[in-house]
Amino acid sequence: MDRFTYRDGVLYVEDVAVEDIAARFGTPVYVYSHGTLVTHLRQVADAFADLAPLICFSVKALSNIHLLRGLAAAGAGVDVVSGGELYRALLAGVPAQRIVFAGVGKSDEELRYAVRSGIRCVNVESEGEMRALARAAAECRMPAGAAVRVNPDVAVGSRTPAKTTTGRRGGKFGIDLDRVHEVYRLAVDDEWLRPEGLHFHLGSPVFHPRAYGDAVDKVLTVTEKLTADGAPVPTINIGGGFPADYEGSGVPGWSDFAAVIAPKLRSFVAAGGTVVMEPGRSIAANAGVLLASVRYLKTSGSRNVVITDTGMSHLIRTAFYDTFHFLWPARPRNGLSPVGRTGEHDQPDLARYDVAGPLCESSDYLAKDRLLPSLRPGDVLAIFTAGAYGMTMASHYNSLPRPAEVLVDGGDVRLIRRRETYEDLVSAEVDAEAGPAAAGTTKPA
Amino acid sequence: MDRFTYRDGVLYVEDVAVEDIAARFGTPVYVYSHGTLVTHLRQVADAFADLAPLICFSVKALSNIHLLRGLAAAGAGVDVVSGGELYRALLAGVPAQRIVFAGVGKSDEELRYAVRSGIRCVNVESEGEMRALARAAAECRMPAGAAVRVNPDVAVGSRTPAKTTTGRRGGKFGIDLDRVHEVYRLAVDDEWLRPEGLHFHLGSPVFHPRAYGDAVDKVLTVTEKLTADGAPVPTINIGGGFPADYEGSGVPGWSDFAAVIAPKLRSFVAAGGTVVMEPGRSIAANAGVLLASVRYLKTSGSRNVVITDTGMSHLIRTAFYDTFHFLWPARPRNGLSPVGRTGEHDQPDLARYDVAGPLCESSDYLAKDRLLPSLRPGDVLAIFTAGAYGMTMASHYNSLPRPAEVLVDGGDVRLIRRRETYEDLVSAEVDAEAGPAAAGTTKPA
Ligand SMILES: Cc1ncc(COP(=O)(O)O)c(C=O)c1O
Ligand SMILES: Cc1ncc(COP(=O)(O)O)c(C=O)c1O
Repeated sequence: MDRFTYRDGVLYVEDVAVEDIAARFGTPVYVYSHGTLVTHLRQVADAFADLAPLICFSVKALSNIHLLRGLAAAGAGVDVVSGGELYRALLAGVPAQRIVFAGVGKSDEELRYAVRSGIRCVNVESEGEMRALARAAAECRMPAGAAVRVNPDVAVGSRTPAKTTTGRRGGKFGIDLDRVHEVYRLAVDDEWLRPEGLHFHLGSPVFHPRAYGDAVDKVLTVTEKLTADGAPVPTINIGGGFPADYEGSGVPGWSDFAAVIAPKLRSFVAAGGTVVMEPGRSIAANAGVLLASVRYLKTSGSRNVVITDTGMSHLIRTAFYDTFHFLWPARPRNGLSPVGRTGEHDQPDLARYDVAGPLCESSDYLAKDRLLPSLRPGDVLAIFTAGAYGMTMASHYNSLPRPAEVLVDGGDVRLIRRRETYEDLVSAEVDAEAGPAAAGTTKPA
Repeated sequence: MDRFTYRDGVLYVEDVAVEDIAARFGTPVYVYSHGTLVTHLRQVADAFADLAPLICFSVKALSNIHLLRGLAAAGAGVDVVSGGELYRALLAGVPAQRIVFAGVGKSDEELRYAVRSGIRCVNVESEGEMRALARAAAECRMPAGAAVRVNPDVAVGSRTPAKTTTGRRGGKFGIDLDRVHEVYRLAVDDEWLRPEGLHFHLGSPVFHPRAYGDAVDKVLTVTEKLTADGAPVPTINIGGGFPADYEGSGVPGWSDFAAVIAPKLRSFVAAGGTVVMEPGRSIAANAGVLLASVRYLKTSGSRNVVITDTGMSHLIRTAFYDTFHFLWPARPRNGLSPVGRTGEHDQPDLARYDVAGPLCESSDYLAKDRLLPSLRPGDVLAIFTAGAYGMTMASHYNSLPRPAEVLVDGGDVRLIRRRETYEDLVSAEVDAEAGPAAAGTTKPA
C-alpha cells in the first residue's frame, strides 16, 4: 500500500525514521515517499496495460513541482485545472503533449496560455468555452486540441461525498450527453481547433467500477455517432476518482477497475484510439503523511484532549469532508506499534483521545475519541494518507504559516518546500504599500 | 448596516462605483469600506459606553495589516490567536497594551514572542500552557500578563453552527469552571506572571444575548471567589461572536447585547475592573464584498449555471459552513437594483441561477437556485457580507492565486494587497531547490 512502516517500534518512511525528519525540519511537515508515488503509478499502468493509457496525474491532489518532476520522469502526464497548475506542470518539466486541461471556468488568459504552451488538449466544459478556445487559438494563430468533457449522468453510489460528485445531471461539470455532439462539431469545423476526443470525471472517490463501466458505455455511444458523422474521436479520457485506502481495510483496487473498464475500451484502442486516465488521490494519498507535534494535553469535562501544532488550516479534510485519517505516534510508548490503520484497536494500554489542532474553530480536530498509546508534549504524531488534498487545500487561516514539505527517496531526504515565515503571510500586503509599481501586475501572469 | 448601496442602478462602496474597482484592479477582488469598519467599531463603543470596554478586534476575521492599522487608529485593540496574527498586529502598529492572545495551542516560541512584545495578556487555555507561559516569562526575564480562558459551558442555541461553538464542556477551548481557580492561582503565585483576569468566548455567531448573560454570571461567581482568596481579577473579557446581518433581515444588535451584559458588569467596572470585547464578524462582515466576473453561462439538465472567476478557494464559507451570501450584479440589467438582501425577491424579470466557481469540486458554489437579473459573460457580481472569514480562510486550492484587496475611504481607493501571481504559488518550492541556505529557517520566525 505504501512505504510508511513501523520497524522496532519506530515509524519509517522508506529507509528514514520520520522522527529524524521532524527533528531536522521541524513540525508540522508533510513527508512524501517517492517510492510509493512511482509504485502506485506503475500499478495503474500494469493493471491497464492492455489499454496502454496515458496516465495524467491530477495536480490538484498534490502539486509540489518537485513531486511532479518525479512523476513526469516516471512517465506520467498531468491533468491541470487552472493556469496556476499549468504553470506548475511546465515548471516541473512535464512535456506539453502529456498535459490535459479541465475545469469549468477557464479564463481567456488561461486558454491562450494553454494554446501557446502547446498542451495536448483542453477539456471543454461548455459551448461558451469552446468558442472562447477557438478565439484563443485564432488569436495565437496556433492549433489547439479540444476535447469535450461529457456529463455522463451516472450514479456513483452513496459512499462518494456530495461535495465531490461531479458527473450528475444538473451539476456544473461537463456538457449534457444530448448536447455533446453539437458542441464537439464546433471543434471539428473550426479552423484552429483539433478535435481530441471525449472526457468524463465521475467524482472522488468512486468505489464502484460499474460506474466507470456505465460512463464508458455512454461515451462509446456518442463516439460511434460522432465517428459515423465524420468527426474523429482520437481519445477517451476516463478521469480520476479511484479510491485510496485510508483505513488499510481494503478498497477496490486497480485490477477491479481494469476488469470492468478495459474490456469495454479494447476495441477503441485497437482501432488506434488513446485512453487517458487522471488519477490523483489513488496515487498520492498514501504517499504522504503529515507530521505534527503534541503541544498540550488537557482534560475537558470527561475527555482527554491533545493539542497539536497542526490543524484544519494545514489539512482541512476532516473538518470539511468529515473523513477519517489514521494517526499514531512516530515512536509510540511501550513499543505499541499499530495493528492496521482503522480507528479501533484491541491492544492493551491504549487511551482514548480527542486530537485537536491549534485553531480557534470547534471543527479543528484531526480525530475524536481515538484509541492511542499514551501521549506527552513533544511527541511526534504521524497523520497518515495525507498526500492527496492535504497541502493543496492548505490556507493561512489564523495566520499560521503553511508546513514544509520533504521528499524521501530510499535513504535520501530532500526539502522540497521551505516552511513559510511570518513575512510570507504579509508580503503581498507590504508590496501593495509600495504602490502600483512594486505591486506588480493586477492580473495573474 | 454598511456603505454598499445601489444608486441609479449601480453599486457603490462609499463614493466609488465598484465596477470601476473591478476595471482597475481586475477580479476577483475583495473590496472593503473603511467607513463601515469604523462606524461598526463606534457602534459597539456607544452601545457599551457604560462599561468603556477595550474593544479588541478579532484578527482571524479580517487580518490585512492596512485594515488593522485603520482600526487601531480608530482606537481598537486586537485579539490574536497565533504568532502570525501577533506579527500582523505589531506591523500594523497596534499598541502592545491593546493586544490579547487566545488560542489552545500556543508554542513556546509564540509565548516568548508575546512576552517580549509586552502585550496586555495571554489568555491561557490549559494548565500546561500556564506553566509554559511562566517558563517563557522567566526565560525572557520579563513580566507577562496571564488571563485564564474559562469554558463556561453555556448553551448558545441551535443557530450557532457546531463548527464554531466554542464554549461547551468537552470541547477543546478554555479551562473547565471547576479548575479555573487552581490554574489562575499559578499566575498569582508566579514570580514573572501578572494575573490579568478571566476570558470566555462562546462561539460565532451567537444570537442570544442571554448566553452572554449566563456566561458573565458564571465568570462573576469565579471572580468573587478569586478576589476573596486574594487573587486580583482586573479584567473580564467577554470574547466575540456577535452576529452580522447577512440577509439584511435583522439580527440582535449591539443594544440588545448591551442591555443584557452591561448591567451585570457595571459594578465590576465601577470597582476599577476593565471589560474587554473581541468582536470580529460583527465589525468586518458587512464591511467587505468580493467582486467576481461571470465567465460562462451554461445549462445543465434544467438548471442555469453561471460560472464565475471566484469560488471556494477564495470564499469557503458557503461550501464549508453551508451559509448564505447575498449576491447581485454591480450593474444589473434593466436597472434591477435589489430589494433587500435575502435570496427571494418578487421583482419581475428575474431568472433562477446556480452561481458556481471555477474549481473542480461540486461544493464550489456561491449560491444555488437564486433569483437574479439576467447575466452575461463579463458581468461583475458582488458577493456581499464577505469581509469576515473571507480572505483569511482563502487557500491556493486548484492553484488559483488569491484575490487582491482594495480599501475604499470616501472617494479614495487604495490597493492593500496585490493580486498573487503564479510565481507566488511556487516560490517556497523554488527556494527549497536552492538548498538549505536559501530555504531560510526551518521554524517560523
Ligand atoms: C477533472 C478531474 N480529473 C481528475 C480528478 C482527480 O480525482 P482523484 O484525485 O479522485 O483521482 C479530479 C478531481 O476532482 C477532477 O476534477
Ligand atoms: C477567542 C475568540 N475571540 C473572538 C472571536 C471572534 O468571533 P466573532 O468573529 O464571531 O466576533 C473568536 C472566533 O473564533 C475567538 O475564537
